[in-house]
Amino acid sequence: MSKDSGVSVTFPRGFRAAGGACGVKDSGRPDLCLIAADGPCAAAGVFTTNVFKGAPVLVGMRHLARGGGRARAVVCNSGNANVATLAAGGEDDAIAMCRAAAEAVGCEPIEVLPASTGIIGRPLPIERITAGIAGLGTQLGVGPEHDRLAAEGILTTDLVTKTTHHTFEIGGTEVRLGGIAKGSGMIAPSMATMLVFITTDVSIAPTALDAALKQANAASFSRMSVDGDTSTSDTVYVLANGDAGNATIESAEGEAFERFTEALTEVCRRLADAIVRDGEGATRTFEVRVRGCKSIEDADRLGRSVTNSPLVKCAIHGLDPNWGRLVMAAGKAGADLNPDRFTVKIQGVTVFADRRPAVTEPDALAALSAKMDTDRVVIDLDAHRGDGEATWLGCDLSRQYVAINADYTT
Amino acid sequence: MSKDSGVSVTFPRGFRAAGGACGVKDSGRPDLCLIAADGPCAAAGVFTTNVFKGAPVLVGMRHLARGGGRARAVVCNSGNANVATLAAGGEDDAIAMCRAAAEAVGCEPIEVLPASTGIIGRPLPIERITAGIAGLGTQLGVGPEHDRLAAEGILTTDLVTKTTHHTFEIGGTEVRLGGIAKGSGMIAPSMATMLVFITTDVSIAPTALDAALKQANAASFSRMSVDGDTSTSDTVYVLANGDAGNATIESAEGEAFERFTEALTEVCRRLADAIVRDGEGATRTFEVRVRGCKSIEDADRLGRSVTNSPLVKCAIHGLDPNWGRLVMAAGKAGADLNPDRFTVKIQGVTVFADRRPAVTEPDALAALSAKMDTDRVVIDLDAHRGDGEATWLGCDLSRQYVAINADYTT
Repeated sequence: MSKDSGVSVTFPRGFRAAGGACGVKDSGRPDLCLIAADGPCAAAGVFTTNVFKGAPVLVGMRHLARGGGRARAVVCNSGNANVATLAAGGEDDAIAMCRAAAEAVGCEPIEVLPASTGIIGRPLPIERITAGIAGLGTQLGVGPEHDRLAAEGILTTDLVTKTTHHTFEIGGTEVRLGGIAKGSGMIAPSMATMLVFITTDVSIAPTALDAALKQANAASFSRMSVDGDTSTSDTVYVLANGDAGNATIESAEGEAFERFTEALTEVCRRLADAIVRDGEGATRTFEVRVRGCKSIEDADRLGRSVTNSPLVKCAIHGLDPNWGRLVMAAGKAGADLNPDRFTVKIQGVTVFADRRPAVTEPDALAALSAKMDTDRVVIDLDAHRGDGEATWLGCDLSRQYVAINADYTT
Repeated sequence: MSKDSGVSVTFPRGFRAAGGACGVKDSGRPDLCLIAADGPCAAAGVFTTNVFKGAPVLVGMRHLARGGGRARAVVCNSGNANVATLAAGGEDDAIAMCRAAAEAVGCEPIEVLPASTGIIGRPLPIERITAGIAGLGTQLGVGPEHDRLAAEGILTTDLVTKTTHHTFEIGGTEVRLGGIAKGSGMIAPSMATMLVFITTDVSIAPTALDAALKQANAASFSRMSVDGDTSTSDTVYVLANGDAGNATIESAEGEAFERFTEALTEVCRRLADAIVRDGEGATRTFEVRVRGCKSIEDADRLGRSVTNSPLVKCAIHGLDPNWGRLVMAAGKAGADLNPDRFTVKIQGVTVFADRRPAVTEPDALAALSAKMDTDRVVIDLDAHRGDGEATWLGCDLSRQYVAINADYTT
């Protein structure tokens, strides 16, 4: 199954999508996305943990809570994050987007989940956006072209669209999932500036969907880092319309629930991978596989510290098999470590063990450096203290990251 | 009193210093420093909190503990951090440096406090170093030229020497302090890759000196960040020889102790400031003055999060009065904040209050951007929740940082 065919949110049965430009972006590039189900859906979301939440986040949380985990549509604009104001005015704008989408789709505003991403601090051109949403209502459709337009409409500094789709079976019934994502800067643990919209035709109760999303998020978006910063707008929404016709998954247990959670996690991991790959200025990604920790929490501490370390990220950029920086980043993580029993591998080669470097000859270091000249560098850390493990994703730090984040036009 | 006259470790009476090159650095630049007291001193140190500690750190901690807080000299090489091995061999090398210094100075090896800084992972050329230390023994002397040589001998990627001196009185008796520092990359909270050596002629008991250093460190080196990374080698040493002739400060209380701690804190703050100013690739520094938090811990959380945020650091680099990134970094810090009552000032201008931006007109933003084009940008954060406050120091993130840390020669 291809990860990058562009097939995504209308792959599950009963979903339509549209995207386009309404002039939020001066460039004229796409800045709107609408995803709609033909009937009611179970819905769930996970949101930024930042104390300051963008207005669409607050409205989305409220719609999910008041709607009892039911929704019909997701509407999103890019180019402006609608935190020009974190104050009341922003919520009015987010609600206006929901109203426009509800009218376009034929549902109640509370059944619409909103999102916005882009520059912080500018007033949202809400008239253009609501007019644009009304226009999208007439363009909703099914198929790769509609998926592509939806995926393009949520991008900001992203270089490529991020899409995926997936199929699995529950008791002989085929279930489909599809998803799109937007990432780039401010991608960090505990979910950072990213938007992810996932559709599925599984039949599932809202509480079970919520539990599945929390598990999938913990194993994917919560374990990636582009720069360690955390945005005010991060949102993952899942809509599940039941069109697959499986026996409804009523609770967060049992084989069907496990199978669905596994599939949802796979979709989230693929999108997380695509987000990190497209990190601002990133030229390569790296995977930190932490093993042998006293707890999962300790494994996460190591993974987070290493993927966020500017010095590690620069070393990956410079193809330097620098065990010293990896050990430094592990040692400062606050995890329970025994420095005498800690091993580090880069690209499968042990570089640190028994409290000393394992590769010191210039030729061997040069060979290892050459092995790092790849899309995905793999780092293994083993604390030899227990069963706690976690795999984190990060990207390198390049001059281009600084250029993007210092010299952007506001 | 000039901060940058170069007058430093031999300013207090009874200390001599020397520095020079012994060939650890291929460039032939200075790589050795020796500071010696003419008689026994009270001594104290604070060290990296990293689980992986360099061999000189382990030896320095042991010498202070076994020597009962007494010492005579500090010896340091730059260019090689002596963590080619975190293993036993490295400690042998650190001890060999102490032996050579003890012979040069005329004291016991346990009275010497060692340090090393530079590239991690290469074997230490210990013969050259011990021969170099022996040579320095004949060159120890007093005055600005000796201070300068000592300050140069501890630098790595630093662009400038970092020196300071200070005078205060206890009961009519003049007391002197002097200090040198090395910083640059990996400078982070909880003390990161930095070395600081301070001398003073105050008469003080070792336990009181230790308490004073802990307080001074908490208010200076623990509240600065260059890149959020934390090295395996960070060390601050203080030697106090009593030559001022003040009534000995016997314990960590009373006016004389408070006055000394204040003076030591001033010296540490000046050196912290110099370290951040000389951060790798830094073009300007910024000060984050956090006020109104529920606790000092919360104020430190905000200060740490903002000074470490790559997006904030890039905005400072790009002269962008980006309140959104400041609010983002504050909101993710894990502090107890009320988003409705949080104010942000940049260069004295309120940019965020009442949950909305306070400066939105293009002309006003341009004027504020122009005000940021200075050596030191001041950011004020007020949580309006209590009395907890902390001031943190950071530097901007430039392409040059990435160049230094990705393309260095190993």
